[in-house]
Amino acid sequence: MSEFDADTRVEAVAANTYAATVTDRWNALGARPNGGYLLAIALRALGREVTLPDPLAVSAFFLRPGAPGPAIVRTEVARTGRRIGTGEARLVQDDREILRAVAHFTDLTQATGRTVVLGEMPKLPPPAESVDIVGDIRVPGVSITDRYEYRMAAIPGWMRGQPTSDPSMSFWIRFKDGRAPDPLSLFAFVDAAYPAVMEIGEGASTTLELTVHVRARPVPGWLACRVSTRFVTGGYHEEDFEIWDSGGTLVAQSRQLALLA
Amino acid sequence: MSEFDADTRVEAVAANTYAATVTDRWNALGARPNGGYLLAIALRALGREVTLPDPLAVSAFFLRPGAPGPAIVRTEVARTGRRIGTGEARLVQDDREILRAVAHFTDLTQATGRTVVLGEMPKLPPPAESVDIVGDIRVPGVSITDRYEYRMAAIPGWMRGQPTSDPSMSFWIRFKDGRAPDPLSLFAFVDAAYPAVMEIGEGASTTLELTVHVRARPVPGWLACRVSTRFVTGGYHEEDFEIWDSGGTLVAQSRQLALLA
Repeated sequence: MSEFDADTRVEAVAANTYAATVTDRWNALGARPNGGYLLAIALRALGREVTLPDPLAVSAFFLRPGAPGPAIVRTEVARTGRRIGTGEARLVQDDREILRAVAHFTDLTQATGRTVVLGEMPKLPPPAESVDIVGDIRVPGVSITDRYEYRMAAIPGWMRGQPTSDPSMSFWIRFKDGRAPDPLSLFAFVDAAYPAVMEIGEGASTTLELTVHVRARPVPGWLACRVSTRFVTGGYHEEDFEIWDSGGTLVAQSRQLALLA
Repeated sequence: MSEFDADTRVEAVAANTYAATVTDRWNALGARPNGGYLLAIALRALGREVTLPDPLAVSAFFLRPGAPGPAIVRTEVARTGRRIGTGEARLVQDDREILRAVAHFTDLTQATGRTVVLGEMPKLPPPAESVDIVGDIRVPGVSITDRYEYRMAAIPGWMRGQPTSDPSMSFWIRFKDGRAPDPLSLFAFVDAAYPAVMEIGEGASTTLELTVHVRARPVPGWLACRVSTRFVTGGYHEEDFEIWDSGGTLVAQSRQLALLA
């Protein structure tokens, strides 16, 4: 079993109640579990209750930082439609709610309406000709960099001590253990990068809310990501994220509201 | 009392339960109440329970179309923090859930962190030199065009029967009765325009999910809006929305996931 599947396992323990273990293998700065990883656990549980297969639109509200250790996910199905099923999941640790997510599910293979794509996949050199920006760098307490592989056209400015003043980037990403991407994993991928605000000299960003729209099931291979922040106002800022699969299909779009730490 | 305030009134009828009346004055196509208007009712009720004054990040999931008539809003406060308060509101009609919203509230006057603005207010001629695109046009069953005033640089292509193939627009908006904008009203404004996909020849769009980030309390006057859709995939599409106040401050950013009707 892949690292992602092992670490997002959930076990039904009562009606609408699942037990999970938040592992310490997805820790970001501050040795705190990555928010996208926590969201994937919550959605794994909710997906057991909603009859449609693919998370389509999900909004997660982060209430408190999570921690490695046991967690409970409480689920509720709000509506089961022919095309859309809607539910809610709350991830709780020590009786304290860590995150709350509401989600529409669908069957993406049934999305046969019109397609008009006015944006393009990020232009990146092939992964084999790109730079492994993490390489042997390890930050104490940060384990998430052992779960993913990242490739960029060049080492980003902030990592060379020279922030570019342009809070945007594009890069390739995949699971280090070779697990293929699927819709559930996209919720982890959209939160797996360094914050774009590093390029305006900031050191950290705390996610308050994250909404993800899944547009298609990704094909196996590397994922190309485009990230940008345009508005930092009083410390609050959005981070927009696109993920394209290796076949050139937009598979997810997300936006989070975050606060400079 | 303004039309918006009168039509979003809520009355506490039990613990965490508010009664409201969805009026027929905010009807969009199909004589259905506009989603942003319904969301404002739900947030009006939730705002009574959360101690912080300003809705900051709100995600609304639309489960069924609403209808003019009585409604109940059920609220729940999930967490009360010093800086952020979080809650949930469900708008119910005839015992059927119409929309569910989760919201972070804050006090925007306390947002004193760094500001870096990399986008600009839409470039529009002053409202007095712009075109009233609604004018005397009325669509049977559609009443929302009596609540707002719209001004654009020119009549949009789709209204002249010549869609431009560019699903984007910018325009001025305000309440027709002169009510000043405030954070609550921004949730109605972000859903008050025609869908950008009209410019690619589509006739209607159904909102599935709408997330709004409020960045500042608007000053009185016209609001300048920028709207765009970039990705229509299998009928699903995002619509991004920015609102700038007349002082040139970004006051809200939103994205919705919608389905071509």
